[in-house]
Amino acid sequence: MSDAASGTGSPGTGPLGVACIGYAFMGKAHSAAWREVSAHFDVPATSRQVLVGRDAGQVAEAAATYGWAESATDWRDVIARDDIDIVDICTPGQTHAEIALAALAAGKHVMVEKPLANTLTEAVEMAAAATEATGRGVFSMVGFNYRRVPALAHARNLIAQGIIGQVRQIRGAYLQDWLVDAQAPMTWRLRAESAGSGALGDIASHTVDLVGFLTGSTATDVSARLQTFVPQRPGPGGPEDVTVDDGAWLTLGLSGGAVAERAVASVEVSRVALGRKNGLTLEIYGTEGAICFDLERLNELQVLRGTDASSHGFARVLITEEDHPYLSAWWPPGHVIGWQHTFVHQVRDFLTALDSGTPPTPSFADGLATQRVLAAAQESARNASAAITLGPT
Amino acid sequence: MSDAASGTGSPGTGPLGVACIGYAFMGKAHSAAWREVSAHFDVPATSRQVLVGRDAGQVAEAAATYGWAESATDWRDVIARDDIDIVDICTPGQTHAEIALAALAAGKHVMVEKPLANTLTEAVEMAAAATEATGRGVFSMVGFNYRRVPALAHARNLIAQGIIGQVRQIRGAYLQDWLVDAQAPMTWRLRAESAGSGALGDIASHTVDLVGFLTGSTATDVSARLQTFVPQRPGPGGPEDVTVDDGAWLTLGLSGGAVAERAVASVEVSRVALGRKNGLTLEIYGTEGAICFDLERLNELQVLRGTDASSHGFARVLITEEDHPYLSAWWPPGHVIGWQHTFVHQVRDFLTALDSGTPPTPSFADGLATQRVLAAAQESARNASAAITLGPT
Amino acid sequence: MSDAASGTGSPGTGPLGVACIGYAFMGKAHSAAWREVSAHFDVPATSRQVLVGRDAGQVAEAAATYGWAESATDWRDVIARDDIDIVDICTPGQTHAEIALAALAAGKHVMVEKPLANTLTEAVEMAAAATEATGRGVFSMVGFNYRRVPALAHARNLIAQGIIGQVRQIRGAYLQDWLVDAQAPMTWRLRAESAGSGALGDIASHTVDLVGFLTGSTATDVSARLQTFVPQRPGPGGPEDVTVDDGAWLTLGLSGGAVAERAVASVEVSRVALGRKNGLTLEIYGTEGAICFDLERLNELQVLRGTDASSHGFARVLITEEDHPYLSAWWPPGHVIGWQHTFVHQVRDFLTALDSGTPPTPSFADGLATQRVLAAAQESARNASAAITLGPT
Amino acid sequence: MSDAASGTGSPGTGPLGVACIGYAFMGKAHSAAWREVSAHFDVPATSRQVLVGRDAGQVAEAAATYGWAESATDWRDVIARDDIDIVDICTPGQTHAEIALAALAAGKHVMVEKPLANTLTEAVEMAAAATEATGRGVFSMVGFNYRRVPALAHARNLIAQGIIGQVRQIRGAYLQDWLVDAQAPMTWRLRAESAGSGALGDIASHTVDLVGFLTGSTATDVSARLQTFVPQRPGPGGPEDVTVDDGAWLTLGLSGGAVAERAVASVEVSRVALGRKNGLTLEIYGTEGAICFDLERLNELQVLRGTDASSHGFARVLITEEDHPYLSAWWPPGHVIGWQHTFVHQVRDFLTALDSGTPPTPSFADGLATQRVLAAAQESARNASAAITLGPT
Repeated sequence: MSDAASGTGSPGTGPLGVACIGYAFMGKAHSAAWREVSAHFDVPATSRQVLVGRDAGQVAEAAATYGWAESATDWRDVIARDDIDIVDICTPGQTHAEIALAALAAGKHVMVEKPLANTLTEAVEMAAAATEATGRGVFSMVGFNYRRVPALAHARNLIAQGIIGQVRQIRGAYLQDWLVDAQAPMTWRLRAESAGSGALGDIASHTVDLVGFLTGSTATDVSARLQTFVPQRPGPGGPEDVTVDDGAWLTLGLSGGAVAERAVASVEVSRVALGRKNGLTLEIYGTEGAICFDLERLNELQVLRGTDASSHGFARVLITEEDHPYLSAWWPPGHVIGWQHTFVHQVRDFLTALDSGTPPTPSFADGLATQRVLAAAQESARNASAAITLGPT
Repeated sequence: MSDAASGTGSPGTGPLGVACIGYAFMGKAHSAAWREVSAHFDVPATSRQVLVGRDAGQVAEAAATYGWAESATDWRDVIARDDIDIVDICTPGQTHAEIALAALAAGKHVMVEKPLANTLTEAVEMAAAATEATGRGVFSMVGFNYRRVPALAHARNLIAQGIIGQVRQIRGAYLQDWLVDAQAPMTWRLRAESAGSGALGDIASHTVDLVGFLTGSTATDVSARLQTFVPQRPGPGGPEDVTVDDGAWLTLGLSGGAVAERAVASVEVSRVALGRKNGLTLEIYGTEGAICFDLERLNELQVLRGTDASSHGFARVLITEEDHPYLSAWWPPGHVIGWQHTFVHQVRDFLTALDSGTPPTPSFADGLATQRVLAAAQESARNASAAITLGPT
Repeated sequence: MSDAASGTGSPGTGPLGVACIGYAFMGKAHSAAWREVSAHFDVPATSRQVLVGRDAGQVAEAAATYGWAESATDWRDVIARDDIDIVDICTPGQTHAEIALAALAAGKHVMVEKPLANTLTEAVEMAAAATEATGRGVFSMVGFNYRRVPALAHARNLIAQGIIGQVRQIRGAYLQDWLVDAQAPMTWRLRAESAGSGALGDIASHTVDLVGFLTGSTATDVSARLQTFVPQRPGPGGPEDVTVDDGAWLTLGLSGGAVAERAVASVEVSRVALGRKNGLTLEIYGTEGAICFDLERLNELQVLRGTDASSHGFARVLITEEDHPYLSAWWPPGHVIGWQHTFVHQVRDFLTALDSGTPPTPSFADGLATQRVLAAAQESARNASAAITLGPT
Repeated sequence: MSDAASGTGSPGTGPLGVACIGYAFMGKAHSAAWREVSAHFDVPATSRQVLVGRDAGQVAEAAATYGWAESATDWRDVIARDDIDIVDICTPGQTHAEIALAALAAGKHVMVEKPLANTLTEAVEMAAAATEATGRGVFSMVGFNYRRVPALAHARNLIAQGIIGQVRQIRGAYLQDWLVDAQAPMTWRLRAESAGSGALGDIASHTVDLVGFLTGSTATDVSARLQTFVPQRPGPGGPEDVTVDDGAWLTLGLSGGAVAERAVASVEVSRVALGRKNGLTLEIYGTEGAICFDLERLNELQVLRGTDASSHGFARVLITEEDHPYLSAWWPPGHVIGWQHTFVHQVRDFLTALDSGTPPTPSFADGLATQRVLAAAQESARNASAAITLGPT
């Protein structure tokens, strides 16, 4: 059993070997999840075999710090190794397709960070490959970690139970402010060729995914406006054009699941909303109740039950009770968890699915559905916000 | 001096005679404002001469209760009276144009409740008549009372002073829930012919007006989606079609005043947002700060100053200090005022304008500008949300 | 019917004539209540006959501004007048006893601002006189206006209905900051001989009264600490000693009404709690629920129902529904009222009690009970906080 | 290097061997901290050698789950081992003294969970032993982990910098509700002989420690009331007497550090405050500003700067910026941390102190100072709340 092993293997089998590709922000967060999962959840044993990155020195240091047995620089070598069962892809979006397709072909289970891919073409190919691999017992999942916020998982349960009736209106936002300074420098995230889009793909993707997750609905049409508030930013050689959006405004028609006929969701995202650091907020209005959430207070859920305004209002429910999703693994009521624990839950759900032979969710097909909405938003924005109808997926 | 007089007239002149047309919700609120204004503000003396309504018995009772010297049933007679200097129009929107035009022609100062009119044609005619009357020293104003919320008047001052820098993004909403019950009965407010539109004209009008008021900007283009969540409601003779919107989503391009280039405002309104009773909220994001407001907590303003996140955040400023707008007239710090006091402030500003010979604001032309935005929103919604460009006003 | 009349008299009788003694802060607030009550509530007609103050010119101006028919400088003359039925005492505490006793003796109904008196001796005498007068059909009331905050009246109803079970623990505070500046000048409010006590009598009195009002309990013992943070302040002739408390901390044993055995209330008050303007807060913890309130958000009540933490939490109930106390008189849901409306409700309740021949509450005896608690607190503080047992009242 | 090692040892030395005594709630939380610290902070390498508990089977399972190399049942054997450098004591309070004294005598660095001990006698002995050991280079610390909440560490810095001026008034509370049900069963925590006291020692201890931590002041006198709301609870053989407090109310005179003369702190704690799960709240009022904190929202700090109420109010500062205490180790702004991370910070600070040869804080002497306050509170409560003067420590 390697130094980086966690949990106890099933009889007759060793722990599942994990390779993580990428060691930046997401690689650090995923590493913590792989380290911690078995101390809190009853999951198949895993072994943190190898962390992969392009800079040999840096990735070796990261592997030591984050608790991986080894490091490597060539992901192709790694996915060919027999001791690797799971490939966790934490690299930038434009590399997702190539790595994921190769890993699935090599028979490895794949977890890939959102967004699924930078282009719709790649996403379509990935979803097809994932479906084919599932037939072979090779599983895959896209990492929309906010599905694993206990408060949101609880909200989904409440909605599924009909607590708030049929959902008519969803008001979603994801507001950040790290680009508020017009002199903040140009980066790859601000170029269409490397990033695909801006706030749209980076953060609206989460909100759109959650609308579907929470209600089981799909988008039927999309109207959008995109805006680049700061059209040029300083680059090393002078001003460069910003070719992605700083903010996006979407309205979606919704159908299916827990939504009423004619339901509508709005999604507003920004990277210049000063004072909002990680402001993913959702307001979900149903016929019999309503639910609100704010990622900056992720241990809380605002719940309104029933229509009797003289006795009811939005109740702040602290989502730290033992019977709340994921919470029995943690601490007594009122002892809050943090953002990083959503990744622990994600790994837990992935491993549990593997263990039970059930395909994990969200699947690549789910990731593709979100990509389609974002692509339609871009098309709508190019056409003066005229709504784009989405076909059946 | 009549029983219903307030304040002391200028030397050589009696108090200004006021007639109020309409005695329902708005008539009651305006009556309270006319009664109270001179006890708190130094304004020209007024006399509450006559309250006008169609039902002689009911209007007589309302006049007694609300403190008017007399009641009457024919507004045409009333505006012809020599003892009437001011006509305050609190009737439904489809009657605004006729009464206002006649009153201005008769040389009476006119205050008209929002919206200015139900149709753009009427609004254009009213604005023209108001301009002409102003030349004769006959003044007019449209009653967007939320401009007189001290917190919003203070916000406007802060923005004008540059405290939050240039405004890039405004996130406005006005959420109510009085139509959440699909069995709530059909009313004139739900028919296009009588109400013009639904949530759009009734409450989005306030939000759109405030965007301009707070920043001094004008809308350059509008994209909108309208939705009727409950398409039929019970009428006396069976189900009837609802022909106005229950909810509306707008995005506006903005230009001028305190907004940055490429600024965008979103406006979302609803009458089925369960749990929101009078939820007019605004979030205004600038380059150097941000401001948030919620009408359900109208004595508070959330203010973020500067971009140093390690030491700053949204500060809850209680707008009850003596140097806040309108507040020196009321109570010590922390002693909150109520919704109805916005109408007292409105009357105060109207009378102060009359006294100084300065046309009061918002003018009929200002009301028309808001109407143009709402009409464009309806046109956009009919065209799958394709944006409508607004010409210079 | 005089200029200052409101409402319609009962058949065969004219309106009740009101005299208001005092025209400063409280006189202004009470005047507004007398002016407005009949426009919103169905009460016996009243006539605002005379406003009384020591400075003839100032009180005449105040009478004109606040809507009183006349002004006067000698309260003794006024309470002798036949056209006066009600005497509303808004003067400083040390004058309450003399005026109230004379008015009751003259057969006038009396409303007196809190505190009932500056000394326990006076309060005892007043309570006795009030009881005697009640036997003659002459009524009296002490003005703890916060009993008329709709949210608190609603809280009392919820507690009486057993919604939160038996109350074990109450956490009350009243925090202000107007003395935070050590250079704020000396005033009569900071001298024991004129003010009796400091924050204790001025604001702890409200909190103590509300504990009894909300639960129907009485205090069985009191332990207290008083503190004067700024022991000297600048007077006209140099530094003067502050001889009252700037802050007070009380714990009370409670018995009776809705409280459990061994219930305890804490009360903390201050005039140097920077950032708190009118911070009367209450947290009431029962065996089956809990209720919280903040006077700076007086239209809201936080209500927790039941003990199931996984589904419940504190719900923010907006107390603006038609079936909430006093609210049917005002505006639609979500249209908030202000601090001054508590005085309108107080006058409404006083007049309604007169009309029905039922003694109004809180009676002078109720005011005396609060005085006894405050006196015991002072005694405890003088004895190193050792608890003082309160006898049966 | 063992399986349970973290970080890289200094040249010439191996990692520091850690033994953890106790594997229940605190043992689990401390284990997570030892596992995670080196992935986030640059600290001396440690090796999780042995987890100690009385039940061999259970502690072996816990050791495997929580990532310890071995388990053991006899702490005396363990502290004698050469491979153990640090002893982390997570057992119930009555065992702290014996283990800590033995470990210090054996030359091991000691971290002990709060409270330092169950009796003042033990605490005195421990503080003396710690002082003696420090002279030998053997260090010790008591685990008041809330000093390591970034928001509170930041608050302490702000106060030390004079941002809020001199502190006059502190309003502290720690409210929980896990004993609200009168039928909740008897446990060792509710017996004086095993638990020492109830809410007082368990949670008031945290609040009292924080008052000193935040301001650098010491308590000069204490007045207290203790209450047991539910005097009997069901035991296995029938009702048993609860011999500790369910709630406690303290006022403390303060002196020294950042507090003004005559400063006062209040502390209210409860285990029956329904709806409060982990409600450690602090309000700190100074002459130039104020700070508020709520452990249920531990990533936030409410900060009021300055005395200009017209422009300022309590600002919600999200304590997730890189320059906030401890935060550079974690995630980007707005990505919140959880309760358990306070233990990671505690271990980080302990290891950093060891590395630099500086005695860590809070020392056993600091723990003793808090114990003295709690003991005085008990004495005061026995004497009808009469204040107890605390001598110089």
